[in-house]
Amino acid sequence: MSSLVCSLPSVSGTTTTPANDSPDLPRSFEYLVYPAFEPLDFSGPFDALNYVGSLYKLDIHLISETLDPVTTRPSSAGMIPQNSSTFFQILPTTTLTTAPDLDVLIVPGGIGSRSPYLNSTIHFIRDRYPKLKYLLSVCTGALLCSKSGVLDGRNATTNKRSYKSITATNDKVHWVPEARWVTDGNIWTTSGVSSGIDGMLALIRCIYGDDVVTNVVNSMEYERHVDAHYDPFAAVWNTTSA
Amino acid sequence: MSSLVCSLPSVSGTTTTPANDSPDLPRSFEYLVYPAFEPLDFSGPFDALNYVGSLYKLDIHLISETLDPVTTRPSSAGMIPQNSSTFFQILPTTTLTTAPDLDVLIVPGGIGSRSPYLNSTIHFIRDRYPKLKYLLSVCTGALLCSKSGVLDGRNATTNKRSYKSITATNDKVHWVPEARWVTDGNIWTTSGVSSGIDGMLALIRCIYGDDVVTNVVNSMEYERHVDAHYDPFAAVWNTTSA
Repeated sequence: MSSLVCSLPSVSGTTTTPANDSPDLPRSFEYLVYPAFEPLDFSGPFDALNYVGSLYKLDIHLISETLDPVTTRPSSAGMIPQNSSTFFQILPTTTLTTAPDLDVLIVPGGIGSRSPYLNSTIHFIRDRYPKLKYLLSVCTGALLCSKSGVLDGRNATTNKRSYKSITATNDKVHWVPEARWVTDGNIWTTSGVSSGIDGMLALIRCIYGDDVVTNVVNSMEYERHVDAHYDPFAAVWNTTSA
Repeated sequence: MSSLVCSLPSVSGTTTTPANDSPDLPRSFEYLVYPAFEPLDFSGPFDALNYVGSLYKLDIHLISETLDPVTTRPSSAGMIPQNSSTFFQILPTTTLTTAPDLDVLIVPGGIGSRSPYLNSTIHFIRDRYPKLKYLLSVCTGALLCSKSGVLDGRNATTNKRSYKSITATNDKVHWVPEARWVTDGNIWTTSGVSSGIDGMLALIRCIYGDDVVTNVVNSMEYERHVDAHYDPFAAVWNTTSA
């Protein structure tokens, strides 16, 4: 099973709050956003970082292929069987070609992660990974990371409802069928949708310590899952028979 | 203590899935968005509705004073002590003056809910409430509902970290200091931030039944709180001494 130990020696296993100006602390957190990303994959971890931003200097950038608004609406009408209109549009702050250096890259999932038109986004993950302090994927964001090659030979997990279809695309990854989130080195992958909140909170604890994550969850009024191996949805979606 | 009974007789207490074309089902869900709203207050309940939209015809509108992008960034730099840049901008779909008839109005909270410049938003809540099937506030969104007068004489709750300051503004409301969410007639108010997910899931169960809410939570991989009275954060923020 995957390790839960923090990957940066400077903060490994810390349970105290690091100095606000510690050079080991990440400053730049960047989200990849693309058409039909999942709202909660993005905003759950975002909200947790928002609270950390009141305690530590950090900047969040939203990266997309262009600066045009990015919609959560699936491009294929077939994805909306009731012809419902349930989407919003968000504004990126930078592009794949203009994105500044980053410390932490966050890759949300969503129906759009299956799009065949995300090659430049996949190449961005591959090209930027060597300089990252951490890479965090949420839900089917793991599919984009997998396609970039950075998960080859690593332990990783993904959305459990889509587990079999996602994991079938890359047998070089050591897919974990039952986990809320998985860490392998500096790569963190979470299960579906809401599990991104727990994965990000675990990463926040890893980086900033217990005092900070307690402050964040009390402010969010969120009872976080602290056991990465706890995953009731593995049984719901029968992933362990994969 | 508040009632948990659904307020629409047609679905009251239902545990089965209503017909997709039932005239009693709400079709139009509208979010009020304003500067410095809380990301998760908005997107947690939004994501749950997103899944319902694949099963039932529903439309979500984002209402703001104008069609300009709405930022989650606090207008006062004093709200960002570390000078962090942790915000995003979202595009409204309609305005307070052009919003269509709506069935369900959702009012997220956030630092911006304390703004003295939201009178037109507060008047919108007051003017639209009589025709709503449901009103749901998340976190300090209850402050805007309270200022509109629709909570007078009702049971309601709000963010627990801000409980004392919010409740002190209106003694005509029967504030509940310990609750994940509170229902009173067709008005649902939730506690802070992440509790909006549980409040919306309870409303979804109320409207669509157990089968639908189970489908939604399994897709979101979210273990919802099913007891509206369960509130560990009341003790954290010492609300019961208010």
